[in-house]
Amino acid sequence: MKDRDPISAQSRRDTFNRRALQVSDAQTLSISYVERVHEESIPLQDSDGRVLASDVIAPHPFPAFARSGMDGYAVRSIDTAACDPGKPIWLEVVDHIPCGYVSSIPIEQGKASRIMTGAQVPEGADAVVMLEATELRTENGRSYVGLKKPIEKGKNITPLGFELQEGDLILRRGTVIGPGEISVLATFGIHTVKVYRQPVVGIFSTGTELLDITEPLEPGKIRNSNTYMLASQIREAGGIPMIMEAIPDDVQLAREKVEEALQLYDIVVTTGGVSVGDYDIMGELVTSGELDMLFNKVTMRPGSVTTAAVKEGKLLFALSGNPGACFVGFLLFVRPAIRKMLGMEQLYLTEWTAELGADYSKVNNFTRYVRGSLDIQNGKLVATPASLDESSVMITIKDSDCLIVTPPELRGAVKGQNVQVLVLPGAWT
Amino acid sequence: MKDRDPISAQSRRDTFNRRALQVSDAQTLSISYVERVHEESIPLQDSDGRVLASDVIAPHPFPAFARSGMDGYAVRSIDTAACDPGKPIWLEVVDHIPCGYVSSIPIEQGKASRIMTGAQVPEGADAVVMLEATELRTENGRSYVGLKKPIEKGKNITPLGFELQEGDLILRRGTVIGPGEISVLATFGIHTVKVYRQPVVGIFSTGTELLDITEPLEPGKIRNSNTYMLASQIREAGGIPMIMEAIPDDVQLAREKVEEALQLYDIVVTTGGVSVGDYDIMGELVTSGELDMLFNKVTMRPGSVTTAAVKEGKLLFALSGNPGACFVGFLLFVRPAIRKMLGMEQLYLTEWTAELGADYSKVNNFTRYVRGSLDIQNGKLVATPASLDESSVMITIKDSDCLIVTPPELRGAVKGQNVQVLVLPGAWT
Repeated sequence: MKDRDPISAQSRRDTFNRRALQVSDAQTLSISYVERVHEESIPLQDSDGRVLASDVIAPHPFPAFARSGMDGYAVRSIDTAACDPGKPIWLEVVDHIPCGYVSSIPIEQGKASRIMTGAQVPEGADAVVMLEATELRTENGRSYVGLKKPIEKGKNITPLGFELQEGDLILRRGTVIGPGEISVLATFGIHTVKVYRQPVVGIFSTGTELLDITEPLEPGKIRNSNTYMLASQIREAGGIPMIMEAIPDDVQLAREKVEEALQLYDIVVTTGGVSVGDYDIMGELVTSGELDMLFNKVTMRPGSVTTAAVKEGKLLFALSGNPGACFVGFLLFVRPAIRKMLGMEQLYLTEWTAELGADYSKVNNFTRYVRGSLDIQNGKLVATPASLDESSVMITIKDSDCLIVTPPELRGAVKGQNVQVLVLPGAWT
Repeated sequence: MKDRDPISAQSRRDTFNRRALQVSDAQTLSISYVERVHEESIPLQDSDGRVLASDVIAPHPFPAFARSGMDGYAVRSIDTAACDPGKPIWLEVVDHIPCGYVSSIPIEQGKASRIMTGAQVPEGADAVVMLEATELRTENGRSYVGLKKPIEKGKNITPLGFELQEGDLILRRGTVIGPGEISVLATFGIHTVKVYRQPVVGIFSTGTELLDITEPLEPGKIRNSNTYMLASQIREAGGIPMIMEAIPDDVQLAREKVEEALQLYDIVVTTGGVSVGDYDIMGELVTSGELDMLFNKVTMRPGSVTTAAVKEGKLLFALSGNPGACFVGFLLFVRPAIRKMLGMEQLYLTEWTAELGADYSKVNNFTRYVRGSLDIQNGKLVATPASLDESSVMITIKDSDCLIVTPPELRGAVKGQNVQVLVLPGAWT
């Protein structure tokens, strides 16, 4: 039996004197302490998932030249006006223009040039006739192309600047870089991109009950799974996780460890130690006066004990040790902070209205974020709650792709009723 | 002017003799040549996004012990039956049980133990009374806890094996690893996981018109953007991209380069050179007999010239050089091949029914995959086509999160009508 005062004045005060914030107020408050991290320049090929730190302006029109959209013949449309299937018009072929090649021979009356898809249309030509609609004849060493149908001006030519004009804003600061953005950047020769630096997030666990994942199971103990789950969530959010040694069961030592981490890293996240219990180091630490506590209770389930504090502009999030509550607390509070540091514009999970896929009868005093799965049925979005959604339950986290928001007034919600859902990262990909 | 035969017999044959496959037939055919790549064991913390190569069975029940769900007192429920707010029942506190600690003192009649959330419930106790519902009194050096209300048996206790029994299948082979899976694996001490090796994908571009992204623009030329876009798409699909030097404009040299790459890498992807033009190296290569051509025409837009071939079990995908067609060709054919090698079960893009968000009047002879954006409006899925969706258009790739499937029979589709959509990777995350 541990020789400790089982019910300290501190924990009693925590138990009964916490002032609960609404989730949105707690989000607004903590996010207000986040600043974008610094910019850095990285090679384009390393930029997947990163966020642009400056607007990108088109340095030239795109396409940068009138481009053939077909393999065929570049012609003057006016020369084809009198074409007829029975009486083809023959134009002399004066050049062959592959891609990347600029013809020096302008197209004059009665002339045409063979041209490839993507090649620059020669001067004088204003249409391209597709290869399949032509025939070829050679006479006295000269080639002639026969056309059977008139072609309209501009046909099969993509004009200069069709997609973008020089000076157009092509990508805005705050854009997340994916294949489409990389395509644009490469097109304009932007091989080095200015992005926001990825925030480094220190992770601590608390609790003497925790075994390392490499240790054999012991009676009464559990393995430290939240740390690894958080590391995975941090990577998804765009941060770099740093797994630290567990926080010791001693407030003074814990304070030193946390403060050291706050100096080294951009954000610090802890899991466990924020309940009303006797050994709730994190609860004690944030109310000790060394950090500015932002909140230590939120009107939500799971994770009502979710806590945040700030020291010298750096945020500490102390999440519940319950796996379900830790998971949700991360998504609602830590992920938005990481995304703001990354310069992202959409900080919070996407929120949609969905149809409830099964009755949900649990009554809550706080808004509950119920793990669930999303599906599209006949064009309608359907959200079905997980069978086990207690805070302490770990097993259904993996099967969830949304959180169904069930405010306390939503009592006896029935199948088919509309509910709000928060879409989890990676749903359907 | 290049001194080449402008219209070779080869290209004529390609132009007119291609046999077009339906998209689903072409997918089935190419995917039939894919085998899962080898397994490897990696540390749990590096396993995000990887795919389990074997089933995972629970090595012990979870929770592994009866766990307190509250900070409070472990009691025998029968002892509380006579409780009354006016007349509390007092039980002697015989132990304090923090998390990770196993009490050696069983709870006998008239006794209780202080217990923390997550701690193992002591022998004899069958309920936990929450701290807030109790009071404490000390008498002759002994502590007594006062209870005012009866508590039911099992209350605030999570029984052993509540989530999982020993031997339960917890994760199936083929599962993609994310935060929830990492949580489960860590919980069971599985710190090294058996996953499928990531396929290495070689990327070639073809075409003398291509400038490197670091080069200044030249008349008639374009920068090589598809290679970088493909590298990004390969990473998203779970593969490892290897960007190769451009394929030379010479079939014999191209054959050597491609065959070398097919020996080194798991898949080879090329972009460009598959049109009906004169310099269509890839078109010529796959019909030369050195590789087994699977198809060189698919009834789709963009990308009807999408080509696949196989040599000694390795797949070559020759995609169109048009950015839009290259993008779609990758998603429909290459991504499923990479995902199959990774051991994933869902190979193809998620397909949903959505409501068309705007009229779409373009008439096509083949099924067209129209880039569009998805939205949920009042619980209904709405897909709106991009304003520019020509194959050659690059700029709208970045703004798309779905492909709207418009078969040739879908003529004059109007806003509000149901359409099928393929959800792009990363939509809404």
